[in-house]
Amino acid sequence: MSEPLAISLFSGTDDRLNAAAVLVAGAAALGRPVHVFLQYWVLDAFRSDRIGADHGLAPEAGADGLNAVHRLQRLGQAPWHETLRQAKELGGVEIQACSLSMDLLDITESDLDPLVDGVEGVTAFWLTASDGQVVFI
Amino acid sequence: MSEPLAISLFSGTDDRLNAAAVLVAGAAALGRPVHVFLQYWVLDAFRSDRIGADHGLAPEAGADGLNAVHRLQRLGQAPWHETLRQAKELGGVEIQACSLSMDLLDITESDLDPLVDGVEGVTAFWLTASDGQVVFI
Amino acid sequence: MSEPLAISLFSGTDDRLNAAAVLVAGAAALGRPVHVFLQYWVLDAFRSDRIGADHGLAPEAGADGLNAVHRLQRLGQAPWHETLRQAKELGGVEIQACSLSMDLLDITESDLDPLVDGVEGVTAFWLTASDGQVVFI
Repeated sequence: MSEPLAISLFSGTDDRLNAAAVLVAGAAALGRPVHVFLQYWVLDAFRSDRIGADHGLAPEAGADGLNAVHRLQRLGQAPWHETLRQAKELGGVEIQACSLSMDLLDITESDLDPLVDGVEGVTAFWLTASDGQVVFI
Repeated sequence: MSEPLAISLFSGTDDRLNAAAVLVAGAAALGRPVHVFLQYWVLDAFRSDRIGADHGLAPEAGADGLNAVHRLQRLGQAPWHETLRQAKELGGVEIQACSLSMDLLDITESDLDPLVDGVEGVTAFWLTASDGQVVFI
Repeated sequence: MSEPLAISLFSGTDDRLNAAAVLVAGAAALGRPVHVFLQYWVLDAFRSDRIGADHGLAPEAGADGLNAVHRLQRLGQAPWHETLRQAKELGGVEIQACSLSMDLLDITESDLDPLVDGVEGVTAFWLTASDGQVVFI
């Protein structure tokens, strides 16, 4: 089970980021190499000055969803960036920012949290994904 | 064409659920084993007391989209849970609730519609997905 | 690297369409056959009388996101349909409308931009996807 997994993240809301982090951590725990590509709004959530901020939820969460998320936080659920940090400590998880999205947000690599390993183009993403599983979140 | 297919559902709006149900049913009709994993808001839509309720649409649907969905319902389109039920009758479709999302919504298995076969963690999801196709909706 | 790639598009907002077009163009540039399937709201964005229109952004984009997108447009970024057009010129990219979604929007093939090659059902989508990568956006 050392199949590589490639995940492109697009949405930067806390609920999708949590779901993504859990999927990444689960695959990493099984010893799989995981390549994460950050496109669009998710990249904003990885800025070093905002990574711990509240990034909102999908509109469908509603007030009940927000309460559920807050309840789980009070019960000690690790935030998504902490889950990703732990997954990276297992080794095998690489996080790359999409170069076009860096242009979009007008930021440079020094603006990003150290969780992000570098910046790459879409060609590099596909070459790394090779013929393994690809997921878009 | 007996390749396994793993689908993680996240969004619980009726439009995404319909698109997902059609993809599941199409794969099942081709004899493929389909493993569905329910994360976050979609799990709320599988509660036995809400499965037939209106779960809303993506914000981008707008008023035109809502009218289109209602028109198709009046023309007799099966709702997503009926499509999934028929797909399950073909055999090969299994639906599992994500254990972390059960905690999030603070519900137990008895709260869920019988369409849901059980509760599993993300490790079980990846092990079942094996090296087959994985889709996140 | 001639692995086939199947992409089902669901969302018709300009940000997701741009992310999708970049992924399609990147795969096509590597010589991969790419099969695009248009479900639900994205199909509306491919109507010949609307393809160049403003299709909005995901709600999470906010005012900052909108400004970022406009800034990139002023800097000359190609719109998603232009990126797809260029990808199609490389050969190997096929775009099919989901037949159920055609019914939903109550449109015929003549309503669609020539970028769309035809209409197909979900069975055809899965048969073409075969055992290659599948992405849902």
